[in-house]
Amino acid sequence: MVVTSPTGYRLEVTETSAQPDGVPSSALPISAPGETVTALGERETLRRIVRRLPRTRAELLGPGDDAAVVSAPDGRTVLTTDMMVQGPDFRLAWSTPYELGWKAAVSNLADVAAMGAVPTALLVALAAPPETPVAVLEQFADGMRDACAELAPGCGVVGGDLSTAGALTITVTAIGDLEGREPVVRSGAAVGDELAVAGSLGLAGAGVWLLYRDGSTDADAEGGREPDARRARVVRHEHPELVREQVAPRSPIGLGVAASDAGATAMLDVSDGLVLDASRIADASGVTIELHAAAIDGAAAVLMAIDPVVGRRARDFVLAGGEDHALLATFPAGSAPEGFRVIGTVRPRGERPVTVGGAAYERSGGWDPYADWDGAAG
Amino acid sequence: MVVTSPTGYRLEVTETSAQPDGVPSSALPISAPGETVTALGERETLRRIVRRLPRTRAELLGPGDDAAVVSAPDGRTVLTTDMMVQGPDFRLAWSTPYELGWKAAVSNLADVAAMGAVPTALLVALAAPPETPVAVLEQFADGMRDACAELAPGCGVVGGDLSTAGALTITVTAIGDLEGREPVVRSGAAVGDELAVAGSLGLAGAGVWLLYRDGSTDADAEGGREPDARRARVVRHEHPELVREQVAPRSPIGLGVAASDAGATAMLDVSDGLVLDASRIADASGVTIELHAAAIDGAAAVLMAIDPVVGRRARDFVLAGGEDHALLATFPAGSAPEGFRVIGTVRPRGERPVTVGGAAYERSGGWDPYADWDGAAG
Repeated sequence: MVVTSPTGYRLEVTETSAQPDGVPSSALPISAPGETVTALGERETLRRIVRRLPRTRAELLGPGDDAAVVSAPDGRTVLTTDMMVQGPDFRLAWSTPYELGWKAAVSNLADVAAMGAVPTALLVALAAPPETPVAVLEQFADGMRDACAELAPGCGVVGGDLSTAGALTITVTAIGDLEGREPVVRSGAAVGDELAVAGSLGLAGAGVWLLYRDGSTDADAEGGREPDARRARVVRHEHPELVREQVAPRSPIGLGVAASDAGATAMLDVSDGLVLDASRIADASGVTIELHAAAIDGAAAVLMAIDPVVGRRARDFVLAGGEDHALLATFPAGSAPEGFRVIGTVRPRGERPVTVGGAAYERSGGWDPYADWDGAAG
Repeated sequence: MVVTSPTGYRLEVTETSAQPDGVPSSALPISAPGETVTALGERETLRRIVRRLPRTRAELLGPGDDAAVVSAPDGRTVLTTDMMVQGPDFRLAWSTPYELGWKAAVSNLADVAAMGAVPTALLVALAAPPETPVAVLEQFADGMRDACAELAPGCGVVGGDLSTAGALTITVTAIGDLEGREPVVRSGAAVGDELAVAGSLGLAGAGVWLLYRDGSTDADAEGGREPDARRARVVRHEHPELVREQVAPRSPIGLGVAASDAGATAMLDVSDGLVLDASRIADASGVTIELHAAAIDGAAAVLMAIDPVVGRRARDFVLAGGEDHALLATFPAGSAPEGFRVIGTVRPRGERPVTVGGAAYERSGGWDPYADWDGAAG
């Protein structure tokens, strides 16, 4: 069922709440498409959402009061927030509400993990157009729940806020527990350390490139193209791994603590691309990071094996594709833990923050998923 | 200087960053109106904002990494989040960016205070149209800083997120420290307790009523009216107390801890109106709250004395006006601390959650600031 809203975008309501692989994830029924946020009212809407949300072991006082209370036995709290806006950050023609919930959770969980902490609780502020079916928010909640269950067991939602807006807007805040560990910051990389990564590289970037290329309408008179749900479904069917990692990334959240325990000297999650994010570690630490050419070629070969559609762009997706939310960390030589693959070395600061085999990285050219993106389209 | 954005709303840039009373609050210069978020880029925009933000004593690791780290010596963390969307939640014709920053901070600080906790840190996620002058965000930051300095000294911003959207959208998350106290929840009111309030009642509601009545354009052919900045300035000049409390409420944040120390049995902040918020305590506690008719009449007389424009509506503003963010709490008889005024008594649960002198509260009728409000207007 597709609902076209007066504010100009389409909300797609599926019959069941399904994981990306199609397995229904919840025994709770999904509300009928005609039951909108406005029709049900705030109180009933909240009741239907809250019962689907994951709870956390750390919860001392959950939703329903002015604020929640969460245990912080370590005496410190790790906290981060991330906002997703329909249009610039996601398109409802490409992502299901379930996948949005998954991704909103993961992008925040990964930030907590990248500090070497265990995510303990989430807050969710969500503004939806008045005509939004409650089913959309229910599926969003299911996505958050399943992401927590699979990637950060024990983490749950302790509170939030429901508002109204012309475009769907989601802000998730995550907090985490360092369990006595020191936070792993970006500035600790030392010359001689090795750079290692856990999680996928380039899949999410290739996924969004495909959605732009094949999941949009033909160009109109002005050359404009818009996300198209029907075409996106074909892309999704033909390239499931790439699209899935874009719309519902599987960041290795648990490996953040493993990295910290193994002595990681710097860490972050790859949200904007390997070269750019590695340069953040390099700049903060005053070093140059040399990505090993063989490791990059190997990662490109893996990406090609997963889906040959990437073709000669594979290396660029590995080096510049964002949103996989892989964990990127530096370790004293030889100490990267299981789950991490060594892909580089920390060198004294040179001319550039990051090199590939000692040379500057210049994009091969010919692809830029964002070049055609019109922020006004949905 | 007024910037009219392609997305259809007006951003007003004032020359100096000023507190509501007109005193410049920062020695840092405000950027030129032509320096937009897009022109400066994310990195430079963030640099200009972050230096204005208040820091917190609790900060162990501040902005610049994947997540912040804040001390939580109590072993528990109080957390809450609140989203403000241009249109439904605020109008740029009525509020300055400085006031928005103030209000975004206060509405969250008040939620932490209402638990009996000390606010320690804020996160700010903000999405602005690409053509937004950085000066708008700088003034927003100044408002947050001054609100923290005046109402919650020691609290500051430890992180956030900057995104883009068609309408200005702000999500603030606040965390707090219980300092060993038990959280004051809504469900603890006991028969025989007294109900007391700290902070103003009805000013903010009267302020928004005035802005709707006199700060909007004349009705068009369809009866529609839009917020009008020029008319709003006249309203602001003629009714400074009422408008100020609407656009930059002065919630008594510090009295949250005082209430807890005095043995408050239940507490919340008045965001939706006295009767409605008192009914939340009543429902959660299984009691009826009787508001004293004389106390309500007294509060209405105070409101009349502050600004006679409220006229015969004074009692309705006291009982049903929201957004003052006063603290409303129940205490064992005789134990309400300084700063709180006793306005009611907790009775065994009767037919209604809240009465005024034993009778149901029915609005006098004739005013509803939201009736004419069109969510599509700015």
